Amino acid sequence: MEQEDVLLVQVGGAAAWPEWQAAFQAAAPGLRVRAFDDPAVDPATVTHALVWQPEPGWLARFPHLRLILSAAAGVDHILADPQLPALPIVRMVTPETAERMGDFVLFAALGMVRELPALIDSQRERRWSPRLTGRLASQTTVGVMGLGQLGAHVAGRLRAAGFQVMGWSRSAKQLPGIECLGGQADWPDFLSRSEILVNLLPGTPETAAILDAAAFARLPAGACLINVGRGSHVDEQALLDALDQGRLGAALLDVFDLEPLPAGHALWSHPRVIVTPHIASTASRAARARQAAHTIAADRSGGAIDHLYLHARGY
Amino acid sequence: MEQEDVLLVQVGGAAAWPEWQAAFQAAAPGLRVRAFDDPAVDPATVTHALVWQPEPGWLARFPHLRLILSAAAGVDHILADPQLPALPIVRMVTPETAERMGDFVLFAALGMVRELPALIDSQRERRWSPRLTGRLASQTTVGVMGLGQLGAHVAGRLRAAGFQVMGWSRSAKQLPGIECLGGQADWPDFLSRSEILVNLLPGTPETAAILDAAAFARLPAGACLINVGRGSHVDEQALLDALDQGRLGAALLDVFDLEPLPAGHALWSHPRVIVTPHIASTASRAARARQAAHTIAADRSGGAIDHLYLHARGY
Ligand SMILES: NC(=O)c1ccc[n+]([C@@H]2O[C@H](COP(=O)([O-])OP(=O)(O)OC[C@H]3O[C@@H](n4cnc5c(N)ncnc54)[C@H](OP(=O)(O)O)[C@@H]3O)[C@@H](O)[C@H]2O)c1
Ligand SMILES: NC(=O)c1ccc[n+]([C@@H]2O[C@H](COP(=O)([O-])OP(=O)(O)OC[C@H]3O[C@@H](n4cnc5c(N)ncnc54)[C@H](OP(=O)(O)O)[C@@H]3O)[C@@H](O)[C@H]2O)c1
Repeated sequence: MEQEDVLLVQVGGAAAWPEWQAAFQAAAPGLRVRAFDDPAVDPATVTHALVWQPEPGWLARFPHLRLILSAAAGVDHILADPQLPALPIVRMVTPETAERMGDFVLFAALGMVRELPALIDSQRERRWSPRLTGRLASQTTVGVMGLGQLGAHVAGRLRAAGFQVMGWSRSAKQLPGIECLGGQADWPDFLSRSEILVNLLPGTPETAAILDAAAFARLPAGACLINVGRGSHVDEQALLDALDQGRLGAALLDVFDLEPLPAGHALWSHPRVIVTPHIASTASRAARARQAAHTIAADRSGGAIDHLYLHARGY
Repeated sequence: MEQEDVLLVQVGGAAAWPEWQAAFQAAAPGLRVRAFDDPAVDPATVTHALVWQPEPGWLARFPHLRLILSAAAGVDHILADPQLPALPIVRMVTPETAERMGDFVLFAALGMVRELPALIDSQRERRWSPRLTGRLASQTTVGVMGLGQLGAHVAGRLRAAGFQVMGWSRSAKQLPGIECLGGQADWPDFLSRSEILVNLLPGTPETAAILDAAAFARLPAGACLINVGRGSHVDEQALLDALDQGRLGAALLDVFDLEPLPAGHALWSHPRVIVTPHIASTASRAARARQAAHTIAADRSGGAIDHLYLHARGY
């Protein structure tokens, strides 16, 4: 007799549990879904876990776990566990993930073109600043780091809205209307022409602190950074220095070394930095429940599992 | 013998004069361009005037004035002069005007979708607010008031970026992918479906205070307003009331009853209002000098004059 699936949800704590429960009830009424700290659950019955920053060692407690489902597109929050069981990890990519990210980065890039940080600063000081007229998107080159599920979509959205767009990835891609560069050899050229730099790389050992003082020094003077990848991609002190030296004109940051960004951090109050709380592409809980239920059904029926994390390439 | 043209520039005061002079030198080296307060200019020689909010009576001092060139797309700042001579007025519409406005409104609409006012407010208070995930542009309906030079372009840009778009004008238009409504009869229906309302009407007696308490009451609950038309279109007290009652979710305002917006005005510090200093589509001085030189050359050669203000229709 086939064992029934039990999914543990460890995302958002007790406050989020009622919403997750309702979302799974709508998406997969037959699925047994339990809160991560439910004392009535026998660890031996747990087959799937949907997690966000699981406590080290926690996932190792379930002997019959089959799949680990990340609550987000990145999986570095799971890989950080030194006792992580050797199981497949599925990234959370819903049909909406790329679209949401596209909306956000288009917003952010147009905000940089239109001097959003200076406009906000002016409003805060009740200063009427009619010379903040900005520039044209069509005369601005955006460089997109990473051309995966999200980067490729984002590059296309920026192009469709009128920007000049370059992309950079490990292996060079072919995308209509976008100048695609690839690998270490193209990195300096890519940076030197990116007036707005958008980071959509995955968090891997290779990409850690890729945006450091040397990278900022290669950007055109006054370039803007939009970081929606990972906080670990950016050397935050080098970023603050580049802003203060005027090398960087402005930054919009959605991800940070430490999240939540600590209250005392200099980035919160920098006049040319917009801080957003890792919301560039958070799918609704309803959409994530649907996607998780879909993955579990595919697993059970022997179907193909999408968005699998591949250890060998590191993302 | 044909009289030579003399253009007076009355825009931006003494501080702006050197930049205007250089811009006209580049655009039309042969044109005689003088500052509005140059004591060496004989008023009888002045043939053209490029103006922004001219002092009442000032334009009447030039007996051989042929054309009045507005420094902006709107002309209400000129019509306010009770001694205005009966001369053709040319609106400033450069090839860039629509594109700049398109960039700005796309930025503003995506900002509303992504809860920009709440994000800014969170940053100011150093509050990490991961639930500010916003919604999708593709599931949001934007209503554009006015489908002229700017409104038609803006509606197309919003559609291309993924929004659902409706338009409303005096006479209903045909625009690909956009549901166009027209006239008083369609006004209530148009409002009731506009989740984001973008105002791009001209300032005329008919459109004065068109956005009043009754209009706000018809919008979907929590709708957002983007005003890039004229301050006179909005009843500012009704707007503040609608925001405070939650009828309006947020507003991004670029134009105001009184500009510069007075330092003590409640709109500066409202947590759900973004104030920008009438910069949605300010062409560069270089682009405006080119356009003005082009108009003067057309006038002199008997060619067609574009962007003429038509008194009979009021815009
Ligand atoms: N802020 C948010 O709300 C949010 C939400 C979702 C995701 N994210 C972030 O977005 C990142 C990207 O997501 P995704 O789904 O698009 O990832 P993905 O599909 O795995 O794509 C990764 C891209 O990065 C490139 N890449 C990987 N390592 C590289 C290296 N060393 N040098 C150059 N290029 C390299 C890959 O190149 P190849 O194509 O050549 O392999 C690929 O184009 C995620 O890892 C996550 O951190 C953030
Ligand atoms: N914030 C900024 O930086 C900035 C910059 C430039 C312009 N603007 C503003 O943008 C406004 C629009 O400029 P534009 O060049 O697009 O103007 P336009 O070409 O004259 O177009 C006006 C549009 O409004 C419609 N309209 C006029 N009166 C109406 C009424 N009573 N009811 C319904 N629709 C009416 C017209 O309808 P029909 O097509 O049926 O005639 C037309 O579609 C300007 O007047 C200016 O105030 C702002």
